[in-house]
Amino acid sequence: MAGTAKSSAAPRLSQRAGWAGGQPISRLMHLALAHPNLISLAAGFVDQETLPVEPAREAIEAVLADAAGARAALQYGTTAGYPPLREAVLARLIDADDHPATEAKLSIDQVVVTAGSNQLLHLLNEALLDAGDIVLCAAPSYFVYLGMVGNGGARTVGVAADEQGMIPDALEEELHRRERFGELNRVKAIYVTSYYDNPASATLSAERRAAIVETAKRWSRATKIYVIEDAAYRALRYEGDDLASMRSYDAEGDTVVVAETFSKSFSPGIRVGWGVLPPDLVGPILSLKGNIDFGSPNFTQHVMAEVLARGLFDRQVALLQESYLGKLAATLEAADEFLAPLDGVRWQRPTGGLYVWLRLPESIDTGPGGRLMQLAMDEGMLYVPGEYCYPAEGAPPRKNMIRLSFGVQSPANIRRGVEALAKAIRQVS
Amino acid sequence: MAGTAKSSAAPRLSQRAGWAGGQPISRLMHLALAHPNLISLAAGFVDQETLPVEPAREAIEAVLADAAGARAALQYGTTAGYPPLREAVLARLIDADDHPATEAKLSIDQVVVTAGSNQLLHLLNEALLDAGDIVLCAAPSYFVYLGMVGNGGARTVGVAADEQGMIPDALEEELHRRERFGELNRVKAIYVTSYYDNPASATLSAERRAAIVETAKRWSRATKIYVIEDAAYRALRYEGDDLASMRSYDAEGDTVVVAETFSKSFSPGIRVGWGVLPPDLVGPILSLKGNIDFGSPNFTQHVMAEVLARGLFDRQVALLQESYLGKLAATLEAADEFLAPLDGVRWQRPTGGLYVWLRLPESIDTGPGGRLMQLAMDEGMLYVPGEYCYPAEGAPPRKNMIRLSFGVQSPANIRRGVEALAKAIRQVS
Repeated sequence: MAGTAKSSAAPRLSQRAGWAGGQPISRLMHLALAHPNLISLAAGFVDQETLPVEPAREAIEAVLADAAGARAALQYGTTAGYPPLREAVLARLIDADDHPATEAKLSIDQVVVTAGSNQLLHLLNEALLDAGDIVLCAAPSYFVYLGMVGNGGARTVGVAADEQGMIPDALEEELHRRERFGELNRVKAIYVTSYYDNPASATLSAERRAAIVETAKRWSRATKIYVIEDAAYRALRYEGDDLASMRSYDAEGDTVVVAETFSKSFSPGIRVGWGVLPPDLVGPILSLKGNIDFGSPNFTQHVMAEVLARGLFDRQVALLQESYLGKLAATLEAADEFLAPLDGVRWQRPTGGLYVWLRLPESIDTGPGGRLMQLAMDEGMLYVPGEYCYPAEGAPPRKNMIRLSFGVQSPANIRRGVEALAKAIRQVS
Repeated sequence: MAGTAKSSAAPRLSQRAGWAGGQPISRLMHLALAHPNLISLAAGFVDQETLPVEPAREAIEAVLADAAGARAALQYGTTAGYPPLREAVLARLIDADDHPATEAKLSIDQVVVTAGSNQLLHLLNEALLDAGDIVLCAAPSYFVYLGMVGNGGARTVGVAADEQGMIPDALEEELHRRERFGELNRVKAIYVTSYYDNPASATLSAERRAAIVETAKRWSRATKIYVIEDAAYRALRYEGDDLASMRSYDAEGDTVVVAETFSKSFSPGIRVGWGVLPPDLVGPILSLKGNIDFGSPNFTQHVMAEVLARGLFDRQVALLQESYLGKLAATLEAADEFLAPLDGVRWQRPTGGLYVWLRLPESIDTGPGGRLMQLAMDEGMLYVPGEYCYPAEGAPPRKNMIRLSFGVQSPANIRRGVEALAKAIRQVS
């Protein structure tokens, strides 16, 4: 009898599995794989050449140097993460902000280590959002985050943004609108990438940081509204001064969550991110994290703690800043040469991050259904259509935007890619 | 104005955050931390002394040996995981089973790398279970898994088990009962730890493997019932022959999920697990995994691929088998000396795994509310109360069981711990 029974039933998956329909970026990744000769200015990956082989080796040797330390790194860790690493990232945040409010009511207990900052964003969604709940997001925003919220059955609502990021007056208006719709109690969070954001490379001004935190607090009536500050690109600053985090405007320490990661600033393969949480969220996030994986891999946390303690991180960041500054310059030079002559093509000059956000004439559809994307591929390059970066509701998507990533390609390839894009644009202009 | 607004709203967490109430084991961990001098035979951690420092060093040196390979390991990977690692674990499963059905309809596309096998179990729950859905589990079962299901809002229903694990006739009865209750369409999976299970060290016999897979297929009518085979302890075999996995009884390859991990057999700190999935589950699991973390850390996957390719894994397993066999012998000797003289104390001699499962007289309550647990702590030892290991419904929990873990402590401490337990039992007998 055994092994002979046949099952005719189709799998009946969970509601959640039905929502998790994938990310628009997978389409792009398939395109890139199918056309390996394309110069991809699409992927938000990091530069291959500057990946920290020697620093990683030095830190790992230090971790493995004595048997007791090595065994500790190879053993289970805790759900919250390796305490010396959590202490180090907290000290760095306090030091970088240099602002009394950052330090206020903040302890290592509020720091949790995650598999990249994406896992922290996922955990926050899990902790805060039921199906139908709302996160207010800048329009445009990091599209993977938008997909994560939608995949959990919740909603992203776009708030207008400009060169300085999310516009506080627009946020205020959107909150009034949600109140009018009777949905204020569904608004659980405001999501902002505060430094050199993805995709627009906009950095929130100090005034806006203060205003958005204040707005979140003022509108936290029946339901608490958190500010999720995605600071993934903070270290990738090439010009200008650093700004204090939004946490520094949260004197009560009960509103802002800071999400950071070493993926962009050190190594995505080591994949260590972390969050600084308001006290009320620590227990729920750790419970959910315990369910997902019991805590992130302990070994790579020990490695990152050594990387920080030995000054290897700061040296790596300096190297990245130099390398990416060169790539950014190559992108801007190529844009000046090939794109500036085209009617109605505009961009902001980033001071950090990995992206240049192009605006094309309104008449040009940059999306996967439009002619431009195919023409650009025919010319040999791939970009991210701007429409992927808009929340599902609220401020409407712009169809005429393009995200260029300059992190992966060499300056020469960046130039060729931008030239190819210009040729494609000419054909639809 | 900025920073002056005060929010009075309490956080309104998601429904899911409310369910994720933590695990009973956290209570034990607090006890262990509060009493550091206790000999803990509770934690299911692995032996500290045999952690593979030199093998890890050799594999990491190999990963970092050439710049291109090193950079690949430090770069982003894919959501499914590093292909050479997936190929290696699949080849090892096929080789270990040496059974045509394991190989049938099986490709690397069905292998996903996860942060330990726990993350795979979590992903399966996410993909399959809505609130109120049912997983049939052996009574007793791995308590962390039971907690994970409950924390997701779903239900575990216990099926009677004996020295050979889950009893197929009891499974059949439970399915009839759920049908009678009109709940058959809520039964989504059968969870079994097929080798040296946690907590009872029972190994499912070949006949039962076949029967349980056949039963799952036959009862998959309107709703598909998967078999989740947790094979976390397969490598920790100290006596007897290896058995082919339950996958080898799934000729159609559409029913059994195999969950494995290197946490117990190599290093929990490196934390690499994997699953072998029926084709229908690949897409949903990868979508959900993409939402959680985009793929497990790439670096440690490259390390594990080297560990396997260099024969370091097999050598480490041989070392572990020797070490744990000695600890098991110490446990059984101490049990023979101190526990056998006590009336009504019984146990099965394990042939693998990390646990000895004690049955005490029915009159003794081993739970955290009973006298024995406090007396055992007074005598200097900590155990896991058996009642933690029973599903929330179905076959009722036994209150007179104890799980002893022999993985962490030295043989001398194991002896002292068992002696202390015997003293405590005498006081309540």
